[in-house]
Amino acid sequence: MNNLIETLNWRYATKRMNGNKIPSEKLDVILEAIQLSPSSAGLQPYTVFVIEDQEVKEKIHKISYHQPQIIESSHLLVFAVYNTITAEIISDYMTLIAETRGIPVESLDGFKTSITAGILTRTEEVNAHWADRQAYIALGHALVAAASEKIDATPMEGFDAKALDEILGLNEKGLHSVVIMTLGYRDDENDVLAKAKKVRRPHEELFVTV
Amino acid sequence: MNNLIETLNWRYATKRMNGNKIPSEKLDVILEAIQLSPSSAGLQPYTVFVIEDQEVKEKIHKISYHQPQIIESSHLLVFAVYNTITAEIISDYMTLIAETRGIPVESLDGFKTSITAGILTRTEEVNAHWADRQAYIALGHALVAAASEKIDATPMEGFDAKALDEILGLNEKGLHSVVIMTLGYRDDENDVLAKAKKVRRPHEELFVTV
Repeated sequence: MNNLIETLNWRYATKRMNGNKIPSEKLDVILEAIQLSPSSAGLQPYTVFVIEDQEVKEKIHKISYHQPQIIESSHLLVFAVYNTITAEIISDYMTLIAETRGIPVESLDGFKTSITAGILTRTEEVNAHWADRQAYIALGHALVAAASEKIDATPMEGFDAKALDEILGLNEKGLHSVVIMTLGYRDDENDVLAKAKKVRRPHEELFVTV
Repeated sequence: MNNLIETLNWRYATKRMNGNKIPSEKLDVILEAIQLSPSSAGLQPYTVFVIEDQEVKEKIHKISYHQPQIIESSHLLVFAVYNTITAEIISDYMTLIAETRGIPVESLDGFKTSITAGILTRTEEVNAHWADRQAYIALGHALVAAASEKIDATPMEGFDAKALDEILGLNEKGLHSVVIMTLGYRDDENDVLAKAKKVRRPHEELFVTV
């Protein structure tokens, strides 16, 4: 079997973790995969909180239906997206491109006009959903990266987002949380899902060839 | 450098492709990575159209700002999500779990009640955005899988979704398109981005450690 497919078959939504810490070099690979994740126009409209502090995890546990993997994890990632996309964010991004590529920022005027027209004319709500989707590409990258490092990971939408924003002070930072993910090691003995067969829609339903 | 990170550094949003076909075994790996992608409650609320037909690609090219990689690609993937999540979809999913794991479907009643309460009580709009996000996890998986097979891929939101739905007859299937992705091989000579340095927000901005 292909290595990647073997890796993806190994992973599952781990409901119980054993509390062991993951080595920092493995965490770095997961974070780098997030950083390298593509996004619409390249804007990366999100910030990722990497939570190791056990007290903070305990607070989040309380507003996440007490799902045990939160406190049993090594790290908890919180994907938080921008509340608003501003002209300043787009300008800063142009500066970043110019500096990275060693080109004059004016040479990006066409690109800047085009993404400004595309993004700043939309409602805040449309842009929030757009930002969510970009964060989910990064979540997809993080999931594959974790599995490739044999680190268990559980993506979770079951939490009180407003309460989480409060805990992390996200409003003041112009952010709100959209999805969280635990990182750690499966507790084989106590996780009923550890040995369960993976359930997926069959190929002939999921795909249509044209 | 870690293999995965090397792979993710190799990939970029390919704007020009050379028309060469990708081998079916590589396409299979990409589709299997999509199939193995996790989703909220495991529902996989999407169908992926795998378009090889050049005439269909030409039609889509016309409603996608004439971006050349669409007609220069080997395959075009269209991620389409369910318009509505129904009780029937949830029931079918319970049957799939029961059959896959060889357990009585009644043993899933608690899970069924819980996801029914969570999903069917939300508005159609909330569920559409939720479905979009799940498709983007699959998009993230597809991107990593393509790169791991040294296949170029370009995720694209720049298309007329209503026109695309019309071309593929998605409405009649209870679906609508959310994102598309070309698969193929980069045209190094004609793609100005092929040699451009990757631009990403710096680690200390993208991540906050708690």
